Amino acid sequence: MATRHFQPTHYFTTIGSHEPVLRIADGDTVVTTTVDARGADSSGSVITARGNPMTGPFYVEGAEPGDTLAVTLDKLRPNRLRGWTRKMVASNVVDPEYVRHLPWPVDDSQALATWEVDNAAGTATLVEPSDTKVGRLTLPLAPMVGCFGVAPAGGEAISTATSGPHGGNMDYRGFREGVTVYFPVAMPGALFHIGDGHALQGDGEIVGTGIEISFEVQFTVRVRKGKAIGWPRGEDADYIFTCGNARPLDQCVQHATTEMIRWLESDYGLDPVGAQILMGQTVEYDLGNIYDPAYTMVCKMPKRVLR
Amino acid sequence: MATRHFQPTHYFTTIGSHEPVLRIADGDTVVTTTVDARGADSSGSVITARGNPMTGPFYVEGAEPGDTLAVTLDKLRPNRLRGWTRKMVASNVVDPEYVRHLPWPVDDSQALATWEVDNAAGTATLVEPSDTKVGRLTLPLAPMVGCFGVAPAGGEAISTATSGPHGGNMDYRGFREGVTVYFPVAMPGALFHIGDGHALQGDGEIVGTGIEISFEVQFTVRVRKGKAIGWPRGEDADYIFTCGNARPLDQCVQHATTEMIRWLESDYGLDPVGAQILMGQTVEYDLGNIYDPAYTMVCKMPKRVLR
Amino acid sequence: MATRHFQPTHYFTTIGSHEPVLRIADGDTVVTTTVDARGADSSGSVITARGNPMTGPFYVEGAEPGDTLAVTLDKLRPNRLRGWTRKMVASNVVDPEYVRHLPWPVDDSQALATWEVDNAAGTATLVEPSDTKVGRLTLPLAPMVGCFGVAPAGGEAISTATSGPHGGNMDYRGFREGVTVYFPVAMPGALFHIGDGHALQGDGEIVGTGIEISFEVQFTVRVRKGKAIGWPRGEDADYIFTCGNARPLDQCVQHATTEMIRWLESDYGLDPVGAQILMGQTVEYDLGNIYDPAYTMVCKMPKRVLR
Amino acid sequence: MATRHFQPTHYFTTIGSHEPVLRIADGDTVVTTTVDARGADSSGSVITARGNPMTGPFYVEGAEPGDTLAVTLDKLRPNRLRGWTRKMVASNVVDPEYVRHLPWPVDDSQALATWEVDNAAGTATLVEPSDTKVGRLTLPLAPMVGCFGVAPAGGEAISTATSGPHGGNMDYRGFREGVTVYFPVAMPGALFHIGDGHALQGDGEIVGTGIEISFEVQFTVRVRKGKAIGWPRGEDADYIFTCGNARPLDQCVQHATTEMIRWLESDYGLDPVGAQILMGQTVEYDLGNIYDPAYTMVCKMPKRVLR
Repeated sequence: MATRHFQPTHYFTTIGSHEPVLRIADGDTVVTTTVDARGADSSGSVITARGNPMTGPFYVEGAEPGDTLAVTLDKLRPNRLRGWTRKMVASNVVDPEYVRHLPWPVDDSQALATWEVDNAAGTATLVEPSDTKVGRLTLPLAPMVGCFGVAPAGGEAISTATSGPHGGNMDYRGFREGVTVYFPVAMPGALFHIGDGHALQGDGEIVGTGIEISFEVQFTVRVRKGKAIGWPRGEDADYIFTCGNARPLDQCVQHATTEMIRWLESDYGLDPVGAQILMGQTVEYDLGNIYDPAYTMVCKMPKRVLR
Repeated sequence: MATRHFQPTHYFTTIGSHEPVLRIADGDTVVTTTVDARGADSSGSVITARGNPMTGPFYVEGAEPGDTLAVTLDKLRPNRLRGWTRKMVASNVVDPEYVRHLPWPVDDSQALATWEVDNAAGTATLVEPSDTKVGRLTLPLAPMVGCFGVAPAGGEAISTATSGPHGGNMDYRGFREGVTVYFPVAMPGALFHIGDGHALQGDGEIVGTGIEISFEVQFTVRVRKGKAIGWPRGEDADYIFTCGNARPLDQCVQHATTEMIRWLESDYGLDPVGAQILMGQTVEYDLGNIYDPAYTMVCKMPKRVLR
Repeated sequence: MATRHFQPTHYFTTIGSHEPVLRIADGDTVVTTTVDARGADSSGSVITARGNPMTGPFYVEGAEPGDTLAVTLDKLRPNRLRGWTRKMVASNVVDPEYVRHLPWPVDDSQALATWEVDNAAGTATLVEPSDTKVGRLTLPLAPMVGCFGVAPAGGEAISTATSGPHGGNMDYRGFREGVTVYFPVAMPGALFHIGDGHALQGDGEIVGTGIEISFEVQFTVRVRKGKAIGWPRGEDADYIFTCGNARPLDQCVQHATTEMIRWLESDYGLDPVGAQILMGQTVEYDLGNIYDPAYTMVCKMPKRVLR
Repeated sequence: MATRHFQPTHYFTTIGSHEPVLRIADGDTVVTTTVDARGADSSGSVITARGNPMTGPFYVEGAEPGDTLAVTLDKLRPNRLRGWTRKMVASNVVDPEYVRHLPWPVDDSQALATWEVDNAAGTATLVEPSDTKVGRLTLPLAPMVGCFGVAPAGGEAISTATSGPHGGNMDYRGFREGVTVYFPVAMPGALFHIGDGHALQGDGEIVGTGIEISFEVQFTVRVRKGKAIGWPRGEDADYIFTCGNARPLDQCVQHATTEMIRWLESDYGLDPVGAQILMGQTVEYDLGNIYDPAYTMVCKMPKRVLR
């Protein structure tokens, strides 16, 4: 149950069976940092190639295929003063006929907006462009992890642009401080990766970004031996939830709903009919992202109805 | 601005250019009743054929194609003591491989659960089946309209099983008391239909029903002349929202998002870049239904960020 | 078994329970004409509103809900010298990011190309625009019906822009001369509608049109009493086939494949395992359209493997 | 332009930047073998782990990112007497409600059918199960490659269960002897992998397999320097074609159609309007697979209309 401080020296843009950067024990807490989606660190310097570079992987002693890795997000904190977003919604989130009416930038250098992030005030303020009708828009911070997960099975190394049963780039704003996330362990040591912090993000990540920024991160790992799950799960004070990562969104719902039924039956003592009657009238769904190669939908059950 | 009491004598299971049952004026309030999805009234008697029978249509004087009809849901109140739901999630909301593991009833007579609805206590209590692990489950009521809308263009008469730009069977639990909903008028008089009350419903209507029950309904209509919209819209104290009805869910998101961009630009004085920067970090999406022939996703913007 | 000559005087842009224009007997052959998708007749005059106007409906004596209506397309013949297509692929058939790179016409008047149709030579020749690199492109004719079907159940009147179990705007180039098509009868008399002739069309109708033209049409109807089917089916000398109409294409495949399994089991004496082993290695699929509100995929089985 | 005989000693179930097994020159022909999808070789012995084991990768001298690798399939020949298929269509290719009516095997050992493959006669004959109504079904052979491709960019190693821009498990029956396939080179040497031979397969690979069998394979590689493409392409005597790999099928069509437009403009001297008018009336689409994690649709243009 040690606290381990780790300073990354290199990053990965795939989640896979890479050489671990640190071996940690079940129960350990890690304090580290992440760079932003384009590889810029807390000083704003680009120190690694873009594409959601991951800190890690962390090898968790005792984690074996068929176990579950629980990761509690103890602290997610932007560690610099400027973040950025894209300015325009993605082509795939509007009607195909409407795509040509989007405000296409003249070139890629015009694609981004800049935000000032004030941790003390808990706000993000739009500073550039300054000539839009939203003006100097100020919004409350809600830091979250865009991309994290464990090494997939079978030797796969999966781009941090996308997601799957192993987690990955789910871009779900429910992955915030205080949440515990469960990943299915597929490789020895689980090989946990984390990165792609967002100071704030709307549902769906419809502009293709949250407010992208480097983070100070603290998380605690626990191994649940012999507990096999199919998709990333999570819980906070009010909900348990399951993630489905696929396309189209319909398939995300299918994965997340099936995983929730399984969870209610295995851990909450519900029979199939009881679980489904209950879900029918109390289930909630969140949209993670509808931008990445795999989209994400989240199936949530309120803890108050699970006793 | 009269209050009109209307007692239906027949119902429709399509939304179309049917002979109006009542002509009402811009600003009028209507007090009426709806039967449940299988045609049972407040006494529990089946008085019309099943399939979301509609009360109406109401002809609104002065409403012309190209206008918008605003309908405020003043009162949505179950008016009998028993409602019903299906017991099993729909085949299309779980992984295809999992479908055969669903708790298939031996026959259709075993497909339904019965709930006791107590308006005074504000609760629904599961009474049958009584042998599941959820026991005598009690949940808070949250009455909503499953299916309502206006006559579609071009002489179409569209089944109340499905939905479209005209509204219809959207099964979205945000259509609750106090909400104002906007429909694009396609035919003279708008021809407003309403029915399919749910005492409660989870996101997605994943068992294919909410708690289906007959309703006492009160609503007020207003015509917005010369205001053309593309999809149903709505608002409550905290949000404005737009509905997209289609398959797959991805296309629902496209319709709802495009409609929201248009709304922000036309009514909230935003330029394209400003609107999209704002939406990117503050938009929310709800899942209406993922059961009907057309699914529904809802794009929401918080009023607090729109000033 | 009479031959009935029918000259239409009005048209419908929905398929529904409209007043029949002619009552015909089981076995009768009808000789009639259809206008093009924009309502222009054999003289090129626009005589009715655009949107795939239908000739009919024809009431077939003896056809009852639960029966099948077999329609043999005896003759499909363009009856004027000019047809038209759109020039640009539809926005929904290319990558969303590519939509803005399509050759958008400056206005709708520039959206169409004109083709010369020569029945004697069996060719269509592009005459306008004349300044593209394909020049005076000449292609062999392959006339087909874009939209036809029977009145849907429940009083629905469905736009001729779309399709469903009743048939409708399937835009499948396999609906050509010599083919027999089967429709599920949902209303007394079946109420058969036909129109939207194409002198030629590629798979998918990706520009949103075939070569749109008015037709001389001859078809023969037969009623299969007590034979209930779920989706339009068809056959020619070499294949039997089933149509699935929905979105996304995945769902079209599901409908068409399920319908084919049912057909093989009911009419070809196959057991489930045998039918599926056979289908697995010999089935073929065609893309009808990927343009209309409902898309169409066709599941085909070669007659040679069905003995 | 040498002919290189290669005997594999190990296999990969991902396509990635693995250590090459052989370095070959531009123009070389390789004669080698592949095991079947479950790792069984020409003697029927399982010699490697299941999951479409790949022979290779072959490092092609001179191939650099941004080039195209052309692979001509000179010879694809089953090299043993027995192959196997699944007996039941996949759950995702039928209506969700129909899934429970599929002929589910009592256990996995009952899931497969056995076929006798006779190269001399050019036939495959079903030998087990012997008790279905299709009896001792004999079908003509049509050997094809299920899975092949080049190392993806960015260090990804992608499971041979699925496909992408790099190729992979496309399961398209058009990949047969005589065809030349083009892959976008993303890593130095291209790193070509090949395996998963099918003696025969229907469209869609709807039972999840073709007739799976080990192969003797001969192919010839050529590097097209400076020729960048986005998706696998191919050609035979009659057609050029492009592959889109994704979900749902709609997105496959979008990728394949966009790639074809680009090809017609860059290599066939067509302007956008000309290319699209031509495609609209002459394009054809094939369904590769609708079973794997990514589906495949193929967009084809007949060479006769391209001069």
